[in-house]
Amino acid sequence: MHALHTEHITAPAASLAPTLQARLDGKTKPPGSLGAIEALAKRLGLIQQSTSPEIRAPHIVVFAGDHGAAKAGVSAYPQEVTWQMVANMLAGGAAINVFARQADIGLTVVDAGVARDLADLPDVGTDGARFIRAKVAAGTANYLETPALTDDQRDTAIEAGARIVRELAAAGCNTIGFGEMGIGNTASASLITAALTGAPLAGVIGRGTGLDDAGLARKHTLLEQAWQRAGAPRDAMHALTEFGGCEIAMMVGAFLEAAQQKMTIVVDGFIVTSALLVADALAPAVRDYCVFAHRSQEPGHTTQLAHLSAEPLLDLGLRLGEGTGAALAMPLLKAACAMLAEMASFESAGVSDKQA
Amino acid sequence: MHALHTEHITAPAASLAPTLQARLDGKTKPPGSLGAIEALAKRLGLIQQSTSPEIRAPHIVVFAGDHGAAKAGVSAYPQEVTWQMVANMLAGGAAINVFARQADIGLTVVDAGVARDLADLPDVGTDGARFIRAKVAAGTANYLETPALTDDQRDTAIEAGARIVRELAAAGCNTIGFGEMGIGNTASASLITAALTGAPLAGVIGRGTGLDDAGLARKHTLLEQAWQRAGAPRDAMHALTEFGGCEIAMMVGAFLEAAQQKMTIVVDGFIVTSALLVADALAPAVRDYCVFAHRSQEPGHTTQLAHLSAEPLLDLGLRLGEGTGAALAMPLLKAACAMLAEMASFESAGVSDKQA
Repeated sequence: MHALHTEHITAPAASLAPTLQARLDGKTKPPGSLGAIEALAKRLGLIQQSTSPEIRAPHIVVFAGDHGAAKAGVSAYPQEVTWQMVANMLAGGAAINVFARQADIGLTVVDAGVARDLADLPDVGTDGARFIRAKVAAGTANYLETPALTDDQRDTAIEAGARIVRELAAAGCNTIGFGEMGIGNTASASLITAALTGAPLAGVIGRGTGLDDAGLARKHTLLEQAWQRAGAPRDAMHALTEFGGCEIAMMVGAFLEAAQQKMTIVVDGFIVTSALLVADALAPAVRDYCVFAHRSQEPGHTTQLAHLSAEPLLDLGLRLGEGTGAALAMPLLKAACAMLAEMASFESAGVSDKQA
Repeated sequence: MHALHTEHITAPAASLAPTLQARLDGKTKPPGSLGAIEALAKRLGLIQQSTSPEIRAPHIVVFAGDHGAAKAGVSAYPQEVTWQMVANMLAGGAAINVFARQADIGLTVVDAGVARDLADLPDVGTDGARFIRAKVAAGTANYLETPALTDDQRDTAIEAGARIVRELAAAGCNTIGFGEMGIGNTASASLITAALTGAPLAGVIGRGTGLDDAGLARKHTLLEQAWQRAGAPRDAMHALTEFGGCEIAMMVGAFLEAAQQKMTIVVDGFIVTSALLVADALAPAVRDYCVFAHRSQEPGHTTQLAHLSAEPLLDLGLRLGEGTGAALAMPLLKAACAMLAEMASFESAGVSDKQA
């Protein structure tokens, strides 16, 4: 655990909160009338310790990895879709490419643990997306039989995730979202979520990319087996080793580093939030740097959000992953910052304040 | 009613729906996994009768008007705030200015019926917002005593709203949102909503810009009086005459014309939707051109949305008006169009489709 340095992860000072609230209440609108946008502005102001927070060089990092259990049938899609989608992202054709371009968000795709050799893929995609080769393993071991990761693999992944975020911060990014691609990774996320929220496993298993009823029943059976084999773990690092994907472990390191760098973290859906659960258990101040982009259709996501006392911005029935929810929420962050910076005050605009 | 020509307002042909659905299902994502964004893409495709719909020259028109009943105490703010906020919009300082600039949306502010002479305001605001002088009356009559509008005022307002939209369409705008500013206009909207949805009046009255408990109780008493005086009207044009603001009547014409022009209409909150209720009663096909931006915190908005079988995109607890919800939703419309136009298909990207 030498790589984590969680003692440097501290919550933003709350002392600016009254100043931010006064600034919001002075804007030419009824107090509170911009609802969640005002709460968002306040959070961004606290994270950046500024009454004029800014979204600078926003970036989404998509971590890709394969899962040994995928071949046992926990997903509706074959395992090769993981690398094919990485290739699709570097060809600019995935949903995350489209949404990132649309919202002027930089994009990095990381081979965290894809089962196939990806030497033939380019370092830079057709739309400028960067490709980082950080393969920890050619897919994880099958957690039906054995822990998915070794301790070494887990720590290597965490360190790699931290390094990627550190480099983005050094390049000027202050707002980061994580996404993921990995056939079988909703299953991993379900197991980790059960371990860390205490919710019954069966309640946090969903259809993932679209299992039918028979597939969902099989997923329940297989995950229950894995859960029992691993001894129903409750410790964060233990659960991560038992069930984690390389991409999930890498996101744990990414969350920890982003919080240490005092960046704003835009949290996507179910799998990303499973990594946050691990990071949150290691360093509870991480959640103070998070903005929750959306509520996924995957049922376990609602369990995670409740565990984190989080209220997401969007509720669009998304269940795609890739960081798509984070990308769609980014314009709201920019709007919240612009509101704080640019809206007139009652005083400056000569508008009468409330009666009585 | 000569100005309405509602016979030219017809629903988009549904024949393109299977083609649009097939295009969505062929994209490199599990079918349906982009949730409401897919439904939105389909609606935009149907409205534009295209598998690659585009948001062109999006625009928000803010209609401002005063209400005779405002002086009776149905709002938390004094009536002069209406014109002060129009001035604020032309100085670029209102929330709608900030959000429109942020999302590259054109902005027009209309004097539909502000109580003060606005000759001293500029034709073009500091951020390029246009000001249209179309005052129908210097505020409406007090509906506690008499109908708020004459039939002539109502028809003049409807025609003016239609003309403004027609000119924007001619200038290349294919996506339009309406906003409003008018102290006292949630009260008007509550009365119109009760009339046209059949919901009990008391259930659709809210705090507006922020009434306290005593103010809310007074608003209930006053609106019940107005409702009884007018004889609990159920006819759309009758209700509009009895309770409508000039800005609401103008939005009725704007809705009708936008639907006739086959534009996409981004519907904002409670007051805008009260105008839609009137337009919908006159020409039910109007709702097929609507995208519902958000669910307002004003309780009657949920009644309106249910009446229209509408599912809004955002639920951010907004209750500001000005078209702010429509502006915040606009990036989602652009994302939906970009998704249809730019995302790769399973075939083009060489990605394996679902198993079994």
